[in-house]
Amino acid sequence: MINFKELAATYKTPLYVYDLDYMSAQYEELKSAFKGRKSIMAFAIKSNSNLSVIKHFATLGSGADCVSIGEVYRAVLAGVPNYKIIFSGVGKSDDEITQAIKLDILYINVESEAELGRVELIAKELGAKCRISIRVNPNIDPQTHPYISTGLHDNKFGVEIDTAKRMYIKANNSEYLDPVGIHFHIGSQLTELKPIYESAEIVADLVRSLQNIKIELKFFDIGGGLGVKYKDETTITPYDYAQAILSTLKGLDLTVICEPGRFLTANGGYFLTKVLYEKRNGDKRFVVVDGGMNDLLRPSLYKAYHKIEAITESLTKLSEADVVGPVCESGDFFAKGYLLPTLEHNDLLVIHSAGAYGFGMGSNYNTRGRSAEVAIKGKEVKLIRKREEFEDLIALEKEYLDN
Amino acid sequence: MINFKELAATYKTPLYVYDLDYMSAQYEELKSAFKGRKSIMAFAIKSNSNLSVIKHFATLGSGADCVSIGEVYRAVLAGVPNYKIIFSGVGKSDDEITQAIKLDILYINVESEAELGRVELIAKELGAKCRISIRVNPNIDPQTHPYISTGLHDNKFGVEIDTAKRMYIKANNSEYLDPVGIHFHIGSQLTELKPIYESAEIVADLVRSLQNIKIELKFFDIGGGLGVKYKDETTITPYDYAQAILSTLKGLDLTVICEPGRFLTANGGYFLTKVLYEKRNGDKRFVVVDGGMNDLLRPSLYKAYHKIEAITESLTKLSEADVVGPVCESGDFFAKGYLLPTLEHNDLLVIHSAGAYGFGMGSNYNTRGRSAEVAIKGKEVKLIRKREEFEDLIALEKEYLDN
Repeated sequence: MINFKELAATYKTPLYVYDLDYMSAQYEELKSAFKGRKSIMAFAIKSNSNLSVIKHFATLGSGADCVSIGEVYRAVLAGVPNYKIIFSGVGKSDDEITQAIKLDILYINVESEAELGRVELIAKELGAKCRISIRVNPNIDPQTHPYISTGLHDNKFGVEIDTAKRMYIKANNSEYLDPVGIHFHIGSQLTELKPIYESAEIVADLVRSLQNIKIELKFFDIGGGLGVKYKDETTITPYDYAQAILSTLKGLDLTVICEPGRFLTANGGYFLTKVLYEKRNGDKRFVVVDGGMNDLLRPSLYKAYHKIEAITESLTKLSEADVVGPVCESGDFFAKGYLLPTLEHNDLLVIHSAGAYGFGMGSNYNTRGRSAEVAIKGKEVKLIRKREEFEDLIALEKEYLDN
Repeated sequence: MINFKELAATYKTPLYVYDLDYMSAQYEELKSAFKGRKSIMAFAIKSNSNLSVIKHFATLGSGADCVSIGEVYRAVLAGVPNYKIIFSGVGKSDDEITQAIKLDILYINVESEAELGRVELIAKELGAKCRISIRVNPNIDPQTHPYISTGLHDNKFGVEIDTAKRMYIKANNSEYLDPVGIHFHIGSQLTELKPIYESAEIVADLVRSLQNIKIELKFFDIGGGLGVKYKDETTITPYDYAQAILSTLKGLDLTVICEPGRFLTANGGYFLTKVLYEKRNGDKRFVVVDGGMNDLLRPSLYKAYHKIEAITESLTKLSEADVVGPVCESGDFFAKGYLLPTLEHNDLLVIHSAGAYGFGMGSNYNTRGRSAEVAIKGKEVKLIRKREEFEDLIALEKEYLDN
């Protein structure tokens, strides 16, 4: 049991708390589901990019799935070996591609024909041969939130099967490109196995068809997206997930690359916020807390549900309340119509499932410094990021004030 | 005409550009609409909180509407006199209230009975008498986006008329509170005059009813919210706006406080982003650019429309494209189905109306540094905030990596 009250007293609120032991257990469960095959679990850094969290996964043997050169630098700094780092994303700049090639990472995941051209050009300029993978868009509906669905033609990610094949042939004929992998990722927070299985089958077929023309890939990159339980979702077990994918790979000698993010971190994170006031407008009850949408954007951006636990001595009966923050937007809320007892100034709310896409989406909107982050491992608690102060917020603009 | 191409070449992209002369003109138009009455235009810092922008308005005589103590500090640093600073917001912490009282700002805008109690308690501890205003929620539908509507009981802002009256009586009887103002703000991006007029009338009636019990207020704070033209909105003119409000104040000797944000800054700001690639998935065309939702969140969060201007030598005919960024989310877009010519690598897109709620809502999501900001005044262009580099992003967590 985590002593949230003590953490809030020591580190103040709002505060992010990560349970690294939970994250280890998730990592090990997923990794072992793929046993019997070579595999790399490449932690999707965008889900939680704190250096100490990345380092924790690196220590367990994890690679890193990165979507910007900044994330690649984080991975390197946190001790992920370069040969386990993947660089994905639809919009890589020339400078990012250059740096990735220089760092000799495992491969660059290419997402368009135009990008393949840029990568080739830059590799040529550098006199390098760049390992690449191609992200295939299998046009399968993942049955998730439109903002986190990525596997339909309707969205920007990846390329169609036919385009992919043409790109592999081009890459294979290039002096400067080495096509080593194939990648797909149909969406995030997936709770249905069938679309995953169907996508893997389509992509495995493409691997076989490439074999027939002597293009031999080494890595079958299944992306991430394994759903977690925020409320009452029925989730896919790692075992079933792995079995579904492995069943499509019969006869293929490929290393599986898996890019888990939310699965590893979401339910290992908590956002702590203190009650400032209760108020009523008409029939409507509001609990105003010291954390805001600048700290945790998911409820506002995706209307996402987060379980809220009140740490209070209040014994009053539960009634519905909107839990809202201090930011000047009606969209600044953590929950609407949530059952809570009457709360007092300084009571603590623990917002669950905040380990993924929490701090990382945080901003300084309304000139609010981002919260501190702490990590728990065994009996040890340590600060892993300092609270942002006013001076930090103006550091890059103060010097221009008097010019 | 602003030479966007030259700015992009000099300062790189993505980049925010502010036209301070446009902002001055907006300020002067609004200020002069209220002539014949004492008034303070208090710039709503949340709309654009760059220190140099705040200083620019301060030089014109502007006050500051702040929604966090961080914004109050910005205002002070940028040269806004303390007696023109207002501190609003539903969730002020004890520490924020303490600092605001110590700085002796114009007044604290109180948003709940519970908050009034905290302010009184803290003022007492400090041996101070705190000037306050009360934010009244007139329960008028502003007919705008639900996330930026604030004047209905359904949302967290302000207090009902009856509650306000009770609070004024309490404040008037307190040794530590000095009720000097009344405040309402029914929403943002308002394009209908009637709800504003009706709200002002309700609030002016309350002022009269307080006069009858010998509570004499000095400030009539009409909030902000004046809409601007993003696409084809018919907006309210400052003159009509001022007339509607002033017509409700007959016989009352009150200084008008107006809190413009978007009206001053939105159309004075441009977001510059470079084309990385064009790509197609099936029939769908995508223009991938180097700016993302971490730079400008409005399209993703509110489905907001922003005019996009392509600076290109392309003479091809226009066709529909989604303009998307490099962030790994389907929600990372600037426009959907926007008519654009075929674009080349390094062509420039100018995203208009980006001066309000642009940079300030920016984040480091996907470990992307925030863009630089530049300001133009007459013929002079100057950098007002440095581009964020990787080292800036990890500054508060790096030291904890090896512990």
